[in-house]
Amino acid sequence: MIELECFKAARARIKNIVVKTELSFAPRLSELSGYNIFLKKENLQKTGAYKLRGAFNRIAKLSDEQRSLGVISASAGNHAQGVAYSAKHFGIKAIIVMPEATPLLKVLATKSLGAEVILAGENYDEAYKHAKELAKSQNLEYIHPFSDDDVIIGQGTIALEMIEEESLDYVLVPVGGGGLISGISSAYKSISPNTKIIGVVAAGASAMYHSFKNKKVCNSKSVKTIADGIAVRDVNKKNLDIILEYVDDIVIVDDEEIANAVLFLLEKQKLVVEGAGAVGVAAILHNKLNIKKGKNIGIVLSGGNIDVTMLNLIIEKGLIKSYRKMQFRTILIDKPGSLQRLTDILCKVGANIIKVDYNRISTTLDYGDAIISMALETKGIEHQNEIRSKLAQAGYNIDEFY
Amino acid sequence: MIELECFKAARARIKNIVVKTELSFAPRLSELSGYNIFLKKENLQKTGAYKLRGAFNRIAKLSDEQRSLGVISASAGNHAQGVAYSAKHFGIKAIIVMPEATPLLKVLATKSLGAEVILAGENYDEAYKHAKELAKSQNLEYIHPFSDDDVIIGQGTIALEMIEEESLDYVLVPVGGGGLISGISSAYKSISPNTKIIGVVAAGASAMYHSFKNKKVCNSKSVKTIADGIAVRDVNKKNLDIILEYVDDIVIVDDEEIANAVLFLLEKQKLVVEGAGAVGVAAILHNKLNIKKGKNIGIVLSGGNIDVTMLNLIIEKGLIKSYRKMQFRTILIDKPGSLQRLTDILCKVGANIIKVDYNRISTTLDYGDAIISMALETKGIEHQNEIRSKLAQAGYNIDEFY
Repeated sequence: MIELECFKAARARIKNIVVKTELSFAPRLSELSGYNIFLKKENLQKTGAYKLRGAFNRIAKLSDEQRSLGVISASAGNHAQGVAYSAKHFGIKAIIVMPEATPLLKVLATKSLGAEVILAGENYDEAYKHAKELAKSQNLEYIHPFSDDDVIIGQGTIALEMIEEESLDYVLVPVGGGGLISGISSAYKSISPNTKIIGVVAAGASAMYHSFKNKKVCNSKSVKTIADGIAVRDVNKKNLDIILEYVDDIVIVDDEEIANAVLFLLEKQKLVVEGAGAVGVAAILHNKLNIKKGKNIGIVLSGGNIDVTMLNLIIEKGLIKSYRKMQFRTILIDKPGSLQRLTDILCKVGANIIKVDYNRISTTLDYGDAIISMALETKGIEHQNEIRSKLAQAGYNIDEFY
Repeated sequence: MIELECFKAARARIKNIVVKTELSFAPRLSELSGYNIFLKKENLQKTGAYKLRGAFNRIAKLSDEQRSLGVISASAGNHAQGVAYSAKHFGIKAIIVMPEATPLLKVLATKSLGAEVILAGENYDEAYKHAKELAKSQNLEYIHPFSDDDVIIGQGTIALEMIEEESLDYVLVPVGGGGLISGISSAYKSISPNTKIIGVVAAGASAMYHSFKNKKVCNSKSVKTIADGIAVRDVNKKNLDIILEYVDDIVIVDDEEIANAVLFLLEKQKLVVEGAGAVGVAAILHNKLNIKKGKNIGIVLSGGNIDVTMLNLIIEKGLIKSYRKMQFRTILIDKPGSLQRLTDILCKVGANIIKVDYNRISTTLDYGDAIISMALETKGIEHQNEIRSKLAQAGYNIDEFY
């Protein structure tokens, strides 16, 4: 077990750099779920994620000589920014190797912190291999994102902050490589052993779930999830051992559930949270937990670095799921006035037309007919039903699509 | 001048209901602007906006008899939720009159807080008239959104919280009707008179700007801005008098600048802020202030209730402005392999195709030609230049559009 003193020392070490993020009561989510929910807002952390804690603690503990040579890591994401920010603080060289397809936001964010970014490899494993080679040939200290005591201890400082502020029965923690939950569960079990620690993995990257259930390393063949921050393929024994000892359970959420949670946090909590950061809220919204109502639950929102393109997709799909957009095709007689008759109905029922497509050469059409496709902005399920009924009354046979 | 004691009493009155929101240093915005910027996050306030403060203070001060009859207000926005939340707290009746075209999010948010929502009138003025009539006929207390001492004092509690935490040289405050800045400037000038208070209005709703500059009420003929929370047409004398006395200057930002600020806060601060809430950041990003570098500036992010449809539009346009999306048309020979040749180039240059449209019956085309329109996801301005040059080398003449 990591000594409590190590966490306390780490906290003192990072204190002037790392923000003590808010842990705040979430009224809407609490009412919806029947729990008392508190959100730990690491998405508002500097660099947009908790990873700064571990990286800074690790680099702060290097000897002057090690530091003077510089550091390196492979990461497409938040760990990269944590390392870059910390290296900049100490005025040392940092190289980050990222897979070639890394989203622009993450490349720029890391570069803007002064690190050198090398794009290499088709996936994380190839980037990792390249980084390890460079570490060796250039005498750079490799900063592992999760399988490292000082990194784990740094992440665990989150638990110290939470324990000071609220008495929690459960804490939900996103799990990828397991660095965050290793730190949080170790710190919790030494200070507040009755608090249950629950990990949440993405269905598309569930290696740690299977390893936990089978009590042995079970790697995935591949990973695919919108929660890129926890899209880790291989389980590391160091983290698994800690998790088997201190974590009470691990649950799974899928991409659809994660997207719903991202949208909920955006609309209801006014917070931008990335997929990996939203898995705890997804577990609550989709009843993945067998917990008695009324309990106090803390949820770690681990990061907010979501690409706006992804955010846009989530919003678009969310509009359809929440009945604020509907799309349909119908057949019109291809003559003047036909479209006017249809738009007149839509106007009267208060539907805003946001897209129109008109096709009269489909082979499925009779001569003299045309297919019209429309997307409408609507006000909810009752409004959509009203639109359906008005169109039916007027003789339109509509074919909805998503 | 409103007595300091009134603000202190209001603060005590609202303390257990209203969240003391964070005032936090914004490293990225500070670095960018050369100021030390602190954001007061009223977008994370309960109901998603500061309006709860004024509404709660006002309703808390009603006599039991007045309260038992119930309250009414006309508002399409955040004030509605503030009134509804407060009325629910006291277990009293609340009616909110909204214009018929009010976005769904705001109607539902108000209903979910237990208020009765009546949709009436084509605009705010008509809704207001209807609400005043109902107030009279049903003996309901009308809760004005800004021209009311208790409301102004409630909003001013924000200043007390800010003064406790940071010593600020300037505070930027969104201005619509002027209730928020009336409260903040009054409180500041009695505790910290050297702090300059700067109002920010939207170009599409600039009545208070002109009234301030001309020192007399100048109403607008109409309003049009994405900052719907401050889209107020008529200036109220009560607020103008306070503003003329305590506000140091008022500046203007336009919709484009507001949209940039919303996107900046979303991407860089991980915060969802509505148009009205983002005007202060817009003023910083677009250099509207004549302030010496190095000063401490507080910015009130007044609310976060932005419709996701609007957020989606802002993100979409932002992607184009930040060179992460490009759209173009070009002419292909209409035969097998033509599209393949084009997509091969785009694939090699790493551009992700997100939309394709193919048209061969335009009257501007020669027979045997086709127009192809494409939208691409790109990685920045250099990447777009690379795409342009590769397409030009291969003989394509592209016509970009936005």
